[in-house]
Amino acid sequence: MYDINLFNQTADAISTVGSYLATRGWAPATSGNYSCRLNEQLVAITVSGKSKGELTRDDIMVVDLSAKAVGSNKKPSDEAMLHTSLYQHDAQIAAVLHTHSVYATVLSRYYASMGQMRLENYELLKVFSGNTTHDMEVLIPIFANSQDMQYLSAQVIDYLKHNPNIHGYLIVGHGLYTWGKSLADAKRHAEAWEFLFECELLHLKINGVLL
Amino acid sequence: MYDINLFNQTADAISTVGSYLATRGWAPATSGNYSCRLNEQLVAITVSGKSKGELTRDDIMVVDLSAKAVGSNKKPSDEAMLHTSLYQHDAQIAAVLHTHSVYATVLSRYYASMGQMRLENYELLKVFSGNTTHDMEVLIPIFANSQDMQYLSAQVIDYLKHNPNIHGYLIVGHGLYTWGKSLADAKRHAEAWEFLFECELLHLKINGVLL
Amino acid sequence: MYDINLFNQTADAISTVGSYLATRGWAPATSGNYSCRLNEQLVAITVSGKSKGELTRDDIMVVDLSAKAVGSNKKPSDEAMLHTSLYQHDAQIAAVLHTHSVYATVLSRYYASMGQMRLENYELLKVFSGNTTHDMEVLIPIFANSQDMQYLSAQVIDYLKHNPNIHGYLIVGHGLYTWGKSLADAKRHAEAWEFLFECELLHLKINGVLL
Amino acid sequence: MYDINLFNQTADAISTVGSYLATRGWAPATSGNYSCRLNEQLVAITVSGKSKGELTRDDIMVVDLSAKAVGSNKKPSDEAMLHTSLYQHDAQIAAVLHTHSVYATVLSRYYASMGQMRLENYELLKVFSGNTTHDMEVLIPIFANSQDMQYLSAQVIDYLKHNPNIHGYLIVGHGLYTWGKSLADAKRHAEAWEFLFECELLHLKINGVLL
Repeated sequence: MYDINLFNQTADAISTVGSYLATRGWAPATSGNYSCRLNEQLVAITVSGKSKGELTRDDIMVVDLSAKAVGSNKKPSDEAMLHTSLYQHDAQIAAVLHTHSVYATVLSRYYASMGQMRLENYELLKVFSGNTTHDMEVLIPIFANSQDMQYLSAQVIDYLKHNPNIHGYLIVGHGLYTWGKSLADAKRHAEAWEFLFECELLHLKINGVLL
Repeated sequence: MYDINLFNQTADAISTVGSYLATRGWAPATSGNYSCRLNEQLVAITVSGKSKGELTRDDIMVVDLSAKAVGSNKKPSDEAMLHTSLYQHDAQIAAVLHTHSVYATVLSRYYASMGQMRLENYELLKVFSGNTTHDMEVLIPIFANSQDMQYLSAQVIDYLKHNPNIHGYLIVGHGLYTWGKSLADAKRHAEAWEFLFECELLHLKINGVLL
Repeated sequence: MYDINLFNQTADAISTVGSYLATRGWAPATSGNYSCRLNEQLVAITVSGKSKGELTRDDIMVVDLSAKAVGSNKKPSDEAMLHTSLYQHDAQIAAVLHTHSVYATVLSRYYASMGQMRLENYELLKVFSGNTTHDMEVLIPIFANSQDMQYLSAQVIDYLKHNPNIHGYLIVGHGLYTWGKSLADAKRHAEAWEFLFECELLHLKINGVLL
Repeated sequence: MYDINLFNQTADAISTVGSYLATRGWAPATSGNYSCRLNEQLVAITVSGKSKGELTRDDIMVVDLSAKAVGSNKKPSDEAMLHTSLYQHDAQIAAVLHTHSVYATVLSRYYASMGQMRLENYELLKVFSGNTTHDMEVLIPIFANSQDMQYLSAQVIDYLKHNPNIHGYLIVGHGLYTWGKSLADAKRHAEAWEFLFECELLHLKINGVLL
């Protein structure tokens, strides 16, 4: 199965990141969910409905890659499948973070009909793993919101299979999913996306044009 | 009457929530007031004029459901009747929070003439007790401000009797009242409303149209 | 002269308020200055050029009502005379706070040519000492910025002599002066003004009209 | 070489400033870098890729004025040369801070084609070393972003040689460089710039015109 010490360390690391993300205002009203890979088959993930700024080990559980509870009868986040399908899709993904910020919510609705947002001319684009310059274009796809996680995760994975070098996606009115090769990577990506969303929204407001 | 241990626990819980709400900027200049049901007849509520980020047990008092002080001669918040009329109206309400944020203030004035604000396409709508999808419409009524609490509370209760599934209301230029079946529920609702108000205001600004 | 214990208590109270105001972002880059009356002749006031979030007793000094140092050769804030002229003008004033926020700065420039800003329909107007309803109008005068403190303080006091019930003023591109019958009063007023400035600016942005 | 106690003190001072700047949101996703002069030849500077809110002595290294590592094989920030060229240019510069804020990012893009931003009518202009009044104009040059640090630093130094009394510059989509005769000076300047950028952006939004 999994090593209990590894689980405890992982749960504590998730709690620390959760506390940071909540302080930034990116987890209002128990929204958001976070996970970390334990091994090839198992994932530690936040349980459903907890306040993300005050997570304890009890608020983290283990699921397999089909999002079924392992070793407990806790209820994983409704969106656990959005996490596990990413781990299934790419063996290099070690952590997935879903934040729920004002900027991601508003921008995802603004660009909903275009199905994506294009970011360029930001130094911070270098932050995404593999990028070495600001002089490029970063795309983030935007999916319609749905309560059908099977459908939504299938859409996401299908998109990822056809589009390499994607570091996150938005769900309309719902927020950001991003990931990384470690929890630190995923956290850095979340910070970068949220910064870029805030920039892009201000940019839209003073320039006053779409596209 | 009431159990002193229950009162102390409740007062401490209100102080903790108050400290959180004040840190978020939702209780400027001693504004806001908070209450929790102690039993069928009595309510613990913040006294008038205190800084909401630094509440002690001394700053919480007991009132009956007509907002009269019980067991002390402290002065309850001017708006105590807005709390107690809710407890009278619905036996399931266990906590009431009144926040006073910039976004609620500005939006309540913007939509004042419509008497309500309509929210849709937000995942966070699921947060309100009883909702299970984002694919719905949530209404929040907006009442004209008044210093006549008897008149204002009568208006609110009359509205609630004719409109089920209401989770909060706005007073013009004054802020939000929301509630729940527990203090944690009410706090989650307050966080959700304030998040949605901020989203809605940004949404208005980049889309530039009313309705 | 003055009681050293009273000075120490007052200095500590000013430091606590300073730390709060700095945390709110209302004292960037050593801006802002704060004072408290010690007795009919003397005032405790922040010295020049200190970071307002980390004040110690050493950063507070005593001046007389003409803003001259008493009992030390420390240099008072350049704007000490704006404080002392208020204490001279009104024996009831016990504390004066000058905050330097983004919102006050931007609004004071926007309304500069009108010489005042008019606030109405805000519940928070009740916060100013003596007000009992939101159903009123609160005026805040706006003075052109100047490095000539004698000239500027004369203008302010002349205005106050002809206009009763004024609780603060703005200097263009420079920020807010407000006061109260105690330090707690002045702090409550500062919080109320800054909240109202933020509301008014958002209100302007979504309604898009001046006046 | 350099005194280890001086290095340790300097590293701790940089960490303290870094923690403050990160808390303000000016160092998202490991962005930003900070340095302090140790003596005429050597500089303490943050290493590459660290989270700026949690710097330890290990995250600070020594470089010479050509940005080469001294006494360690750590990798300095990619932008170390932007720091060291400033120390070479002006013997009075004792600290350099590069912040990466939303406001600096958005404004630097907005004014990119003009190559500079002009600030006037702000009391806070007095904060920059040598200024004694608000009644003046402060220019901040804006350079196109580049990953070629040799080219970028040559452009900056050439500009500074021809323009006295410059206290900072912007790189498009990338943020602020500012400096001072001490770390405290540089921090005060960073705070002033970031405050002025936020003011200028709000000013643009409510006045709705460029220039």
